[in-house]
Amino acid sequence: MDNSQNFIPLCTMENKKSDTICIFGTGDFGRSLGCKLLQCGHSVIYGSRNPQSSSLTPKGAEVFSHSEAAQRASIIILAIHRENYDFLKQYTEVLNGKVLVDVSNNLKINQYPESNAEYLARMVPEAKVVKAFNTISAWALQSGALDASRQVFVCGDEIYAKQSVMDIVRTLGLTPLDQGTLLASNEVENYPLQLFPMWRIPIFICSGFTILIFLYCVLTEVLYPCVTLKEDASYLIAISIPNRVFPIVSLILLALVYLPGIIAAVLQLYRGTKYSRFPDWLDKWMLCRKQLGLVALAYAFLHAIYTLVMPIRYYVRWWSNNYIITQIKTNNTYEFLNHYAWLSDSYVALGILGFFFYVLLGITSLPSVSNAVNWREFRFVQSKLGYLTLVLCTAHTLVYGGDRFIYGTYYKWYLPPAFVVALIIPCIVLSLKLIIIVPCLDKRITKIRQGWERNSKS
Amino acid sequence: MDNSQNFIPLCTMENKKSDTICIFGTGDFGRSLGCKLLQCGHSVIYGSRNPQSSSLTPKGAEVFSHSEAAQRASIIILAIHRENYDFLKQYTEVLNGKVLVDVSNNLKINQYPESNAEYLARMVPEAKVVKAFNTISAWALQSGALDASRQVFVCGDEIYAKQSVMDIVRTLGLTPLDQGTLLASNEVENYPLQLFPMWRIPIFICSGFTILIFLYCVLTEVLYPCVTLKEDASYLIAISIPNRVFPIVSLILLALVYLPGIIAAVLQLYRGTKYSRFPDWLDKWMLCRKQLGLVALAYAFLHAIYTLVMPIRYYVRWWSNNYIITQIKTNNTYEFLNHYAWLSDSYVALGILGFFFYVLLGITSLPSVSNAVNWREFRFVQSKLGYLTLVLCTAHTLVYGGDRFIYGTYYKWYLPPAFVVALIIPCIVLSLKLIIIVPCLDKRITKIRQGWERNSKS
Amino acid sequence: MDNSQNFIPLCTMENKKSDTICIFGTGDFGRSLGCKLLQCGHSVIYGSRNPQSSSLTPKGAEVFSHSEAAQRASIIILAIHRENYDFLKQYTEVLNGKVLVDVSNNLKINQYPESNAEYLARMVPEAKVVKAFNTISAWALQSGALDASRQVFVCGDEIYAKQSVMDIVRTLGLTPLDQGTLLASNEVENYPLQLFPMWRIPIFICSGFTILIFLYCVLTEVLYPCVTLKEDASYLIAISIPNRVFPIVSLILLALVYLPGIIAAVLQLYRGTKYSRFPDWLDKWMLCRKQLGLVALAYAFLHAIYTLVMPIRYYVRWWSNNYIITQIKTNNTYEFLNHYAWLSDSYVALGILGFFFYVLLGITSLPSVSNAVNWREFRFVQSKLGYLTLVLCTAHTLVYGGDRFIYGTYYKWYLPPAFVVALIIPCIVLSLKLIIIVPCLDKRITKIRQGWERNSKS
Repeated sequence: MDNSQNFIPLCTMENKKSDTICIFGTGDFGRSLGCKLLQCGHSVIYGSRNPQSSSLTPKGAEVFSHSEAAQRASIIILAIHRENYDFLKQYTEVLNGKVLVDVSNNLKINQYPESNAEYLARMVPEAKVVKAFNTISAWALQSGALDASRQVFVCGDEIYAKQSVMDIVRTLGLTPLDQGTLLASNEVENYPLQLFPMWRIPIFICSGFTILIFLYCVLTEVLYPCVTLKEDASYLIAISIPNRVFPIVSLILLALVYLPGIIAAVLQLYRGTKYSRFPDWLDKWMLCRKQLGLVALAYAFLHAIYTLVMPIRYYVRWWSNNYIITQIKTNNTYEFLNHYAWLSDSYVALGILGFFFYVLLGITSLPSVSNAVNWREFRFVQSKLGYLTLVLCTAHTLVYGGDRFIYGTYYKWYLPPAFVVALIIPCIVLSLKLIIIVPCLDKRITKIRQGWERNSKS
Repeated sequence: MDNSQNFIPLCTMENKKSDTICIFGTGDFGRSLGCKLLQCGHSVIYGSRNPQSSSLTPKGAEVFSHSEAAQRASIIILAIHRENYDFLKQYTEVLNGKVLVDVSNNLKINQYPESNAEYLARMVPEAKVVKAFNTISAWALQSGALDASRQVFVCGDEIYAKQSVMDIVRTLGLTPLDQGTLLASNEVENYPLQLFPMWRIPIFICSGFTILIFLYCVLTEVLYPCVTLKEDASYLIAISIPNRVFPIVSLILLALVYLPGIIAAVLQLYRGTKYSRFPDWLDKWMLCRKQLGLVALAYAFLHAIYTLVMPIRYYVRWWSNNYIITQIKTNNTYEFLNHYAWLSDSYVALGILGFFFYVLLGITSLPSVSNAVNWREFRFVQSKLGYLTLVLCTAHTLVYGGDRFIYGTYYKWYLPPAFVVALIIPCIVLSLKLIIIVPCLDKRITKIRQGWERNSKS
Repeated sequence: MDNSQNFIPLCTMENKKSDTICIFGTGDFGRSLGCKLLQCGHSVIYGSRNPQSSSLTPKGAEVFSHSEAAQRASIIILAIHRENYDFLKQYTEVLNGKVLVDVSNNLKINQYPESNAEYLARMVPEAKVVKAFNTISAWALQSGALDASRQVFVCGDEIYAKQSVMDIVRTLGLTPLDQGTLLASNEVENYPLQLFPMWRIPIFICSGFTILIFLYCVLTEVLYPCVTLKEDASYLIAISIPNRVFPIVSLILLALVYLPGIIAAVLQLYRGTKYSRFPDWLDKWMLCRKQLGLVALAYAFLHAIYTLVMPIRYYVRWWSNNYIITQIKTNNTYEFLNHYAWLSDSYVALGILGFFFYVLLGITSLPSVSNAVNWREFRFVQSKLGYLTLVLCTAHTLVYGGDRFIYGTYYKWYLPPAFVVALIIPCIVLSLKLIIIVPCLDKRITKIRQGWERNSKS
């Protein structure tokens, strides 16, 4: 080992905690962060326009003028709004070589063409700008309620500046996540403004189907007997009709998870290449398949419990009791029918197995589980098990329907029962899939997906 | 900042595996770690007081005197107790510039004022001390049973020393986690000694309520009929009474999750600032809300299954059969009552939906899920969906109670039914929340939480 | 290696995105990766044997000869097969100091004695070889379907080369995971070829038991009545028999999770040391305990739902109705038996509690949860709660069996009911555990596990 190795300026971090951290700005976030830093043993100073009149800073922290504060510290946290970054121009000299931490957030996603941190780096090019802490709220810092947001995204161009900020993050009990260079700052700044962006479309689609199917069921099961038989069946709205809506929408959504993959395959077959881009709607659809599947799982879960409580419900118990009493009074006992037992049990068994694989798919889509499997395993689960689930759930509905598909007596106002409607999309998806996995087509698709192009070869 | 910092030799890690690793100490952990290192292709030597008599070292590892072993390796793992660190003082010269890995653990949390690694660094200031491997047990290393503890916390002041230790950790199939500088060593040393510290208070609270409500239910439902009617209802203890205790305690705990947030808001309103600290008990309470909620979810889960098995139970089936037989014998059939069907179904539906959101809250509190959402999304789920769950569960209990609140016949020994007791805290929490979200108060709280202070302005 | 190379200014990463990335190879992966890099704002050039005839490259990327392309970029991605690495030998000069990214995968696990990346590093020793991107499929890059495989394993000997590749990975929206030096490349190359290697043995064992118990149940419950009573009980195959198979196999598998630990303890007691290796089958068995337990949980989950649907099934409803009708017709009402209520309820309660702890064990084995607990906590859950689960489930089966163990009428063709068979292994495991935790043995095992050896002391 040669000597030169011993001369690495590694000591920069050694007496880090004794290093003073400077905070520009005595607003809410500046004060909360200062408090927290002081609690964790750092020495904190503030830079302020009017050092004398600043009574708002936490106890234990001195206040100086901007330039004096900047001189006394090697790390400066900028807890001010982007609009006020201009004043830093006058301090470029004193900021030379300092680590400048941008903690700012915007009010809207992509509010400015340039991210705040990049804007800052352009304004004070001599400073080492690091983006950090913007994912943490002042309120969370104060209250210690950091269950969710222990993660602090850190990005910056200078590796040592970034490291020292990450070390400060760790001393506050937070988890720094290196996001690379300042180019990532735009994404880091957008992150805390998002509110489930990937869930919008799935929830919108799901709500649409839910309302439609609900109205359809109310029409055929509450209004129909009310109009034709003058019966009040409104109590069905609490459980019976939801328990019809949930499985139907769940099945449709599950089919919609697998439809875009089939459309993509058909498109690739037709175009003879995989290198042309899909239409935008297909891209968006493919990106929200996971969320669609999870909404479908939530509905399947509700369907399972709504079904299991059946024997507890007053309505079901009353009809069951009434059925026995009628049998006795009319002295008319029904025989045990083997094929009925088969039908009833196999429809229930198919449903349970379908639900089981549904849950399995849900568990494998948990981030920590899907991170632990490789691409081949993930495809196996999501594609093979996914189609198995779809087949099981479709079969569950088909067997449930049984012979009711044929008999017109179940058609009210010429409308088929709701579960017939539910089967349309799943059956289309499964038939298309069956066509696609015909060997000659499957071979062609595999070739295309491995990079083969029809036009380039012909 | 001088120029030399920009030039760091990068080649230090290149022929790492051929580097010899030295282990001081032939105790259990030293031997286990040596075995594992040898299995993973490292060359290992031991440093011992009596190199001749050390027959305990694994095959393939030579034993030398301490100073000779230290000279032959650049990384020295110190598998000895803190009490024996003194002897290292004589080797300061040979340890100069070496990476010294502290793997020690203490017997008690915060046993010494200074962490072992910091004590070591102070004793051998010329060595580069890295804390690592203390979270791994010797038994786990040997048996390969590393499901849980694949994570090795590493901390140290020298970035390259840390990197090379982390590379060794990776070659053993373990996951190194950079915890920053040696300042973190105290926390790293305390970590393996903990046994669910955050769960103590929630489980204590939960057990207290469980015992209280259980005794209350035994009093009113087993002892009361036993004393007044001479009936033996002891069989209720197996399922019926637990199924009363679980939902009641679950509802109370869920309310207790949201109570401290309300108390904090009231306190902030009263004080007119958010910058004064909360009393200690409130801080502690707020920090264990997640665990309280999870215990509540566990009880809700048990309540759900205990309810679903009802129709399978002998006791329930007997009463149900008896009910039908009595009806027939007395020739006294009961009519179907629409409003009963509504009441029964809506109470069940509320319970199911409440349970559904409960489970959703539980899933989002999984570390990998909560890490994937930002602060805004987490607050949306935990606050909005959390209160929705509380409202649904409280409504579930209220509708379940129905008209039994009024009729005195349900009051045994002047004691109200247990579910009335269950409603007290949730109703208080919900009413306080209703008051707090009145616009004028809500605006004030928002202002305070954004940093506004009453005193500083007036 | 010349001297200048050892001193790299840290600012190399500053204007990274404007850096040109060169891709050698215009095959599928090269084109897909190029497309993605272009989309993310990088400038991309291709190196090709015939720069003129390469019409397959994505728009926006120029094609040059290999040497020219290499000269224009500091990072070269090698999207060619290992078999063709030879041609690089002629470019050693131009590749000097360049970052060479190996993205290759093999067709079989451990196909070559040396990993592709190490082979490359040996062939072009002047280049800085980094292994990356091999876990990402071309199809996933194109379609954006990156749910599973956002993780890109990166390894390499040169820290800065690795850092710059990791930064590129981040700009593509993927998550780089530092795997250490090139020594890890073998593992990184094997990773995408695996298909649930840890699940093979558990699923094999589980399938074996499932088939055996299924045949046993069909024999005693379908064939026996068919042969002796000429009754058609085939409808039991849909639900009743699976619901017997699932709990039995689940219980056996759960016992098999704890058996190897006991065998290991007995072996250590007998050998008087923990330092000799276990036989190979025991090692393998111990390593797949987690998977065995999860399969057991899946079966327990199915058992729970199959049981809960009982009152919904036609078969069960028919028998229940028939039972009432028979009672009324024969005017023969059965009395309520307290001890029956106790028995029925306690067997159900034991099952529910067992299932609850089962689920708890399953949740703690989620990667993100088990990472959040330390070794002591994990052992507490998996060992203490695990045995509690086993005891509860065994007791559940015992109480369910009740007095049927004794009466010969339940023995068909001299075969005991299936649940008696189920109890054999769990009872053996629990009795052995009871013997092992006898203080004198327990003390000895603890001593051995702390490193004590019988032979070395005597």
